[in-house]
Amino acid sequence: MSLNILFAASEDRWQTYEAPLREALAEVGHGDSTLALDIPAAEVDYIVYAPSSDVQDFTPYTRTKAVLNLWAGVEGVVGNETLTQPLARMVDDGLTQGMVDWVTGHTLRHHLNTDLHVMNQDGEWRNFVPPLATDRPVTILGLGALGRACGEALAGLGFPVTGWSRTQKDVPGLHCLSGDDGLRAALSGAEIVILLLPMTPETENILNAESLALLPEGAAIINPGRGQLIDDTALLAALDSGRVGHATLDVFRQEPLPPEDPYWSHPKVTVTPHIASETRPKSASRVIAENIRRGEAGEPLLHLVDRGLGY
Amino acid sequence: MSLNILFAASEDRWQTYEAPLREALAEVGHGDSTLALDIPAAEVDYIVYAPSSDVQDFTPYTRTKAVLNLWAGVEGVVGNETLTQPLARMVDDGLTQGMVDWVTGHTLRHHLNTDLHVMNQDGEWRNFVPPLATDRPVTILGLGALGRACGEALAGLGFPVTGWSRTQKDVPGLHCLSGDDGLRAALSGAEIVILLLPMTPETENILNAESLALLPEGAAIINPGRGQLIDDTALLAALDSGRVGHATLDVFRQEPLPPEDPYWSHPKVTVTPHIASETRPKSASRVIAENIRRGEAGEPLLHLVDRGLGY
Repeated sequence: MSLNILFAASEDRWQTYEAPLREALAEVGHGDSTLALDIPAAEVDYIVYAPSSDVQDFTPYTRTKAVLNLWAGVEGVVGNETLTQPLARMVDDGLTQGMVDWVTGHTLRHHLNTDLHVMNQDGEWRNFVPPLATDRPVTILGLGALGRACGEALAGLGFPVTGWSRTQKDVPGLHCLSGDDGLRAALSGAEIVILLLPMTPETENILNAESLALLPEGAAIINPGRGQLIDDTALLAALDSGRVGHATLDVFRQEPLPPEDPYWSHPKVTVTPHIASETRPKSASRVIAENIRRGEAGEPLLHLVDRGLGY
Repeated sequence: MSLNILFAASEDRWQTYEAPLREALAEVGHGDSTLALDIPAAEVDYIVYAPSSDVQDFTPYTRTKAVLNLWAGVEGVVGNETLTQPLARMVDDGLTQGMVDWVTGHTLRHHLNTDLHVMNQDGEWRNFVPPLATDRPVTILGLGALGRACGEALAGLGFPVTGWSRTQKDVPGLHCLSGDDGLRAALSGAEIVILLLPMTPETENILNAESLALLPEGAAIINPGRGQLIDDTALLAALDSGRVGHATLDVFRQEPLPPEDPYWSHPKVTVTPHIASETRPKSASRVIAENIRRGEAGEPLLHLVDRGLGY
């Protein structure tokens, strides 16, 4: 039976995804599916979904078996009360590799203080030698697929890595902590802190005046997770006081970050434009097609969102 | 029997090394040794050596069993015809870890083009997404202890790594090449080239106009090895033509690099002040003490220099 798959995202995304999605569907035996930007709601079997799309009321999608999000972040849809269908997040190998590249690159940038040289090619021989990675404690908040992959990569480079998550996890090679006491322990002594938590009511502003005060003087913050994880006013104050030595921020409450935002002009902040992890259409299409195959075969979906937890 | 160990290096080095060396000697059962900056030549059992020291004529050191270099580079001593004693290079875990930190950090810096953001915090949202590490071919010239460790770390991060050495080697996870044809293959298609060769007559100016012309347009060069590996005039020309997109150089024919050197002011060059790998006294002292233990026990020395090869 041919399936009707609604692509509920922008025309731009459609240009990027149509070919790899058709190819991936053919690979899993659903090459005869109808894949389109517009299908009558009552006839849709699956929705490939961007939370910013026009589809905000899921009530008329009476036969839809699953909503397959194009990205990892689902905060724009998880609270939608009309959504009664299963919702799957995107967990894409390319996205994970891209995040590992970005996180290891910026962790090493802070560890080695390469900016000192990049920004001062003035003829002065500043031969300051940094400590070894083995003497540089790093903490990752969030041990989902991305946090775990980054933690493993950094531990592989020799960094002592502490990982914190809401519920206790066990990742070989990482010192794993959880809960409120665990958070305090994870932040005390962390010279580099990486934020890879999902955005939930519990994680909003998790870096605030109180938690930032636990860090050792001069710690670096790297945020490729979600802008809302940080209380921006508290971070700016901690940068000014020297508690935080530098912040590299890839995500913000408002994106693109407005040119007049104080982060752009702060000498201890590096803004990057939400590039830490970009879903790659080819590998993401394979994940979507695999979930459609699973849905049709009656197998459990990959990366199903727990609506109670919010991710 | 108590040993006489001459510390033939500067007073500054002595300050740094005396305590860790005494501690490391005690650990291997030679805590009763005489360790000093001045011992009559005919009574010296071992020389801990900096090639820049006053000891340049080894003839009077008639009972010396080995010369133990404080660094990896031995080009300042290997050609000394008065040296008939075995010569060992320093291969120090800390030195290797430091080199891996620096090389992976600068490889990721070029891979991600982090400078674009670090140097342009001007409010413009430049969301260029780099390829994945898995699509970024890296070539390392030199597969000694340092080249091998860096190659393994980069391969562990997902980069496709080609390693080239004079004689064929086999490093799991790396595509290993050797010889002249191998060098041409290693450079063709390498988007990032890392120089970790020893300085010998064969490797001097190994990056010259001819070999640089093999690189793909815009390749990055990273040199933490030896300044003499590069024909500086040819590199500057390749940077100006765009063949080489950026060079990060840690070592130079003259150090400190004079302020008027064109590398300092070239917009496509990042100079770092010979910090890629600095021997750490604690771990280096353990290597020296272990070689003294081996010398006394009649066991083969670690990291013995092949005088014919020059390293």
